[in-house]
Amino acid sequence: MSAAGDRQLTALSELAGLVAGGTTRRSQLATATGLSRAAVAQRVDLLITKGLLVETGTVATERGRPPLALQLASDAAVVCAVDLGATHSTVAVAELGGAVLSEATEELDIDEGPEAVLSGLHDQLGRLLADAGHPASHVRAIGIGVPGPVEASTGTVVRPPIMRGWDGYRVPGFFEGRYDAPVLVDNDVNMMALGEYAHRPAADHLLYVKVGTGIGCGIVSSGGRVHRGASGAAGDIGHIRVPGQDDVLCHCGNTGCVEAVASGAAIAAALRDAGLPVEHVADVVRLVAAGDPTARRHVRLAAQRIGDVLASLVSFWNPDTIVLGGSIASLHDDLLADIRAAVYRRALPLATRTVAIEATILGRRAGIEGARRRAVHHLLSPAGIAQFLSTP
Amino acid sequence: MSAAGDRQLTALSELAGLVAGGTTRRSQLATATGLSRAAVAQRVDLLITKGLLVETGTVATERGRPPLALQLASDAAVVCAVDLGATHSTVAVAELGGAVLSEATEELDIDEGPEAVLSGLHDQLGRLLADAGHPASHVRAIGIGVPGPVEASTGTVVRPPIMRGWDGYRVPGFFEGRYDAPVLVDNDVNMMALGEYAHRPAADHLLYVKVGTGIGCGIVSSGGRVHRGASGAAGDIGHIRVPGQDDVLCHCGNTGCVEAVASGAAIAAALRDAGLPVEHVADVVRLVAAGDPTARRHVRLAAQRIGDVLASLVSFWNPDTIVLGGSIASLHDDLLADIRAAVYRRALPLATRTVAIEATILGRRAGIEGARRRAVHHLLSPAGIAQFLSTP
Repeated sequence: MSAAGDRQLTALSELAGLVAGGTTRRSQLATATGLSRAAVAQRVDLLITKGLLVETGTVATERGRPPLALQLASDAAVVCAVDLGATHSTVAVAELGGAVLSEATEELDIDEGPEAVLSGLHDQLGRLLADAGHPASHVRAIGIGVPGPVEASTGTVVRPPIMRGWDGYRVPGFFEGRYDAPVLVDNDVNMMALGEYAHRPAADHLLYVKVGTGIGCGIVSSGGRVHRGASGAAGDIGHIRVPGQDDVLCHCGNTGCVEAVASGAAIAAALRDAGLPVEHVADVVRLVAAGDPTARRHVRLAAQRIGDVLASLVSFWNPDTIVLGGSIASLHDDLLADIRAAVYRRALPLATRTVAIEATILGRRAGIEGARRRAVHHLLSPAGIAQFLSTP
Repeated sequence: MSAAGDRQLTALSELAGLVAGGTTRRSQLATATGLSRAAVAQRVDLLITKGLLVETGTVATERGRPPLALQLASDAAVVCAVDLGATHSTVAVAELGGAVLSEATEELDIDEGPEAVLSGLHDQLGRLLADAGHPASHVRAIGIGVPGPVEASTGTVVRPPIMRGWDGYRVPGFFEGRYDAPVLVDNDVNMMALGEYAHRPAADHLLYVKVGTGIGCGIVSSGGRVHRGASGAAGDIGHIRVPGQDDVLCHCGNTGCVEAVASGAAIAAALRDAGLPVEHVADVVRLVAAGDPTARRHVRLAAQRIGDVLASLVSFWNPDTIVLGGSIASLHDDLLADIRAAVYRRALPLATRTVAIEATILGRRAGIEGARRRAVHHLLSPAGIAQFLSTP
């Protein structure tokens, strides 16, 4: 791509992004970009011809010709969003503007390996596209969150602790030939963080902490950039050491990891040891909701230990927002007070005076919402525009 | 500023940045930017007229007219870099291209307050400008690192633990009327991190860990962005809790902070308790250099505790480079092995397989080098170019 071509794509991307953000008139686009009205017209017409934008008349006024309004196309362009977990896949088909057309959750076993799992996912996606009334050719981008570390630039799964058989597997490769669309793959917790970030206009430095069977964290800052780190492992906080728990063995082979003492699985194990009828994390949630004092006690201890870890991260990274999600997040009444107390007790006042520690507002939909955002964001980027323009 | 003006400034900034990076021919600039040769010529001529660039003939060849080479001006434009510590100020005057023209370190007491300290600094700066043969009117940007938290957008010191009398003081205000130049203020450790980052082409996610009287950290990623966090407190790792040290009281009022058990001051106190003749951190360095086994033992224990904290940060942030600096960094032979061992023992393989843990390569000059880079970087940014063009 030439530098002049890059500039053209950047300008197209900027225009599409402004339309997505609610700038609907050509005159407003000219003002916002500094381009001439002729230059705006030339570019907008290209995006309309290619099917990324549509222009519609609004209700006529008494003052004459109704102004035309631009918006992202919804007839022949959709994105797919996938939240792949250890035991489920949630898939959504959505318009570029955000409206979800169809969505469903199905059970699966991630350890069946990539070919089997992705084949099932492909079938699920086909059914949802049919429900939404769109052929596969309308799919313009696919965002997928997976429960393991990912090299985001290639969509390759890298040394996942769960996901048997996926190590080194390049997920977008499966979709080549099936869809003529870019596939954006990321760790599921990163997707959840992105989803929450997009729904919190006041957040600029956000940590999304997922407490379920394990414990993980997504890091978003600076206008929506996911921090993935040098090898895509950023946010892997489950094996940070908690003071005073050196006698507890973790599945990683170390002792005292926060995941070994404060995850849903750890709480469930502690309650089993205490003689309570607990098999899964859902049983913990049920017991606490029923007011069982032993269960509440163990959840509060877990919250204090999670808070100890978060206090260190607040001192280091100075977030303005920490979002608590995952399957035990529904217990936020019992969790948040102790997490907040631990953070306020240990981190410095300058770092804690602006931090909000809150429960997820998207709940189980954080992952799918992040994957959808990621797909649309890519589609409106210069690289996504280039791919869009090159499809027939 | 209009959008069209913004675009012009962005183009000028891009051209100046390319010249600074070694693209010296007009034809190369046209290729690199995608602009026409006429558009490049118009912009380059403006930057020459205003004194930011100069164009010089190179040695004539037998093949005729020598090609002209562009470079950043060095006749009427310099930047000043300041590294302000608790007890010293290092000031440098440098050409935009990097050559340091004059530099000196003087003693001071930061607790004398902003007016007294900055007056002394102003005198020092005047002497160094005279040494370099430049009047104050040639100063085009000033970068200043200070030993406390800073709201970088305004240059205001915010709740510093040392720096008595500086809380809420806006440092650039002092220089208004004295220099017609933007003043970029940041925490000294952030400046040091920026300096090291600029000298490590392979680094993309860097932590600079300063171990001196206290312990602090600078965070740089994504092409040279300093992560300051929501309130400028990011990197304040001195009060992260170290496991197993809950009986040690820290000056912050908590117990078990890494600064209370592993800083230069903490090692010095431990050696005094052991009956050794130690007053300052320099005495610790001297004893270790002389091979004193008790001193070496305490330095190694400190390294293990620092390593414990860094292991958590490696898991969370997944850096590719950790640089050890500060006044006890000269003991890196004794420190690095234990820090590395602790990080490798506790952090996950995916995060540790790419991380390099190394001693500073800039040493005491890291802060001044970062402040110089920050000043030049601002000068070549669109905002800096705008200020440059508006000066007579």
